[in-house]
Amino acid sequence: MQTSTETPARLPRLSDRAACLRSSEIRDLLKVADLPGVLSLAGGLPAPTAFPVRRIETAIGRACATAGNVGPIAFQYGPTEGLAGLRELLAAGTCASPPLGDPDEIIVTTGSQQGLDLVARVMVDPGDTVVLEDPAYLGARQVFEGAGAHIEGIPIDRAGMDTAELERRLVAGLAPRVVALVPNTSNPSGRSLVPERRAHLATLAQRHGFLVVEDDAYYALGFGTTPATPIGHLAPDHTVMLGSASKVIAPGLRVGWLRAPEWMIGALARAKQTLDLHTATLPQLVVAELLGDDGFMTEHLETLRATYAERAQILHAALAGTIDAGEPTGGMFLWGRTDVDTRAAFPDAIAAGIAYVPGDAFTIS
Amino acid sequence: MQTSTETPARLPRLSDRAACLRSSEIRDLLKVADLPGVLSLAGGLPAPTAFPVRRIETAIGRACATAGNVGPIAFQYGPTEGLAGLRELLAAGTCASPPLGDPDEIIVTTGSQQGLDLVARVMVDPGDTVVLEDPAYLGARQVFEGAGAHIEGIPIDRAGMDTAELERRLVAGLAPRVVALVPNTSNPSGRSLVPERRAHLATLAQRHGFLVVEDDAYYALGFGTTPATPIGHLAPDHTVMLGSASKVIAPGLRVGWLRAPEWMIGALARAKQTLDLHTATLPQLVVAELLGDDGFMTEHLETLRATYAERAQILHAALAGTIDAGEPTGGMFLWGRTDVDTRAAFPDAIAAGIAYVPGDAFTIS
Repeated sequence: MQTSTETPARLPRLSDRAACLRSSEIRDLLKVADLPGVLSLAGGLPAPTAFPVRRIETAIGRACATAGNVGPIAFQYGPTEGLAGLRELLAAGTCASPPLGDPDEIIVTTGSQQGLDLVARVMVDPGDTVVLEDPAYLGARQVFEGAGAHIEGIPIDRAGMDTAELERRLVAGLAPRVVALVPNTSNPSGRSLVPERRAHLATLAQRHGFLVVEDDAYYALGFGTTPATPIGHLAPDHTVMLGSASKVIAPGLRVGWLRAPEWMIGALARAKQTLDLHTATLPQLVVAELLGDDGFMTEHLETLRATYAERAQILHAALAGTIDAGEPTGGMFLWGRTDVDTRAAFPDAIAAGIAYVPGDAFTIS
Repeated sequence: MQTSTETPARLPRLSDRAACLRSSEIRDLLKVADLPGVLSLAGGLPAPTAFPVRRIETAIGRACATAGNVGPIAFQYGPTEGLAGLRELLAAGTCASPPLGDPDEIIVTTGSQQGLDLVARVMVDPGDTVVLEDPAYLGARQVFEGAGAHIEGIPIDRAGMDTAELERRLVAGLAPRVVALVPNTSNPSGRSLVPERRAHLATLAQRHGFLVVEDDAYYALGFGTTPATPIGHLAPDHTVMLGSASKVIAPGLRVGWLRAPEWMIGALARAKQTLDLHTATLPQLVVAELLGDDGFMTEHLETLRATYAERAQILHAALAGTIDAGEPTGGMFLWGRTDVDTRAAFPDAIAAGIAYVPGDAFTIS
């Protein structure tokens, strides 16, 4: 190693943009939660016992053997928008995802987190306003804050985001570029947006000219309920639909997808190209094979829903009388109210072998 | 589908940032180049016949079988910075990559393209100046233009970027945040930066306080030459070193890495978290196993170098007398000068079954 001896070295400095980036508090909590002997209720980690490992192995074997003119397609550079076969499946709809309509309006993403980031790149300039649910999914908040957005929170009740309150603020002058939400069994509230509010939100988007980001990772994980019509089907020109294989197959594959209106899909593809050229091919082939195997996925999803429903019931029953949490209806999250200061109590909980996330980590206002 | 009947729908509009994104011209050319019967010299696609498919399959089998407390680690969420085992290997150095020093200063990226994007996020604000080689790697240009940077080109000669010219402009007032280059057999010039200019660039970075981005995808692909000392070893506090498995194993895996100074690694990790949480785990396990198998990789790299050297010699000989291209010394690119208008001649070339990229696609000034 050699350094200049002429003048003292001047270090470069970080950009102003870098100051907008913050780490997820949950990430720090997960480090504690990962200690041996601690039962972690802190992160949205899928049950690893439910990963379809054997089925994935079969899919990988086939992917490796697939030979084309240019050799095994699993290993060469691939299209930025994702593999055509996977996009066609998603366009038609699968038992784990709603029909997305047109393969040309679909991009395969490196997890749905990248879908959020892509939307922020092409829709948000520093100083723009972005509306989130309050409490909000932290991954969305990080992305939009990192883009320099001002975040406005709209409260959630048992029917999801309070769209009447959103309308009041819109009428009073709020002019968001983006309204982002998790429509089914949201992280962290566990609540789903009811059909009337979906229709209301679609109308508001059209009237006020904002984009809805419908991050639907838990679409297929309702406990015995069929998901309501996606907002993206009610206002297709005003909605980006995001989906993910993380919660229904496995998160380590990092395969998600988005469906966007024609007026923005080209800009999203150009942004995707600068981000990572394309999503890793082998995981795309695995997801395409599994999502395309309707018999397998139907059975697998039933197992998943039964696993999460049983766990949710046990947790809900254990909390009864201490924490006021609504009946779980799907997904992975239970949001409750208690008089206990959950942040102050956290060290005691860890000592007793339980980790959770204090609710104020998610609140905006 | 339902639309508002009250007032005409107002479409959202793209951000000002979206206007900075442009597609790679090469990407459009590659669509033409991909026609049957066309020999494409247009893109930096590795030879698919050289993908180590059997070795990768063995690695995947092992990755699927790896069970821990939380189930097969290939499928669960993983650490944002990448798998510890891969980072430790890269820190120590492999036959395909220089030693990077400290695992805590390494992040595994979704291809080295993401490494460029991460650097742009934490170092570049709109209006900042970024210096590139002229001609430049288009992937870098897209990223920094997408970040709103003003791009300044420094000419290349047979010894790489002309650092004396860079110094003249720095003295005259040029104040770049970042100077990005491909130090070994650059894309598209095929030229490597000679040791004296590496030392000069390191000194300039320290004196003028800019960051060098050393994108070293072709480090291990020199034809019978050992790469010079990386700039990151000469000025470690002023350099981000980028590397990639794309050219030495397979690009479809989308595994790259970066090594950054301590003062910026935290900001890069926070940015990576918002981008895609982490790089897909299965491809990381594959790359870790292959890079860790020194016997296999040494032999594999010899095969790769022999393959590319033979092809380069054939091309160079075929061009002799028509196009003045320097002797190829490694990597995948041959840059030549000719009196022919290569853009005007492109349709004839395609008709004759040959695709290439007209040089002006890469030039900055």
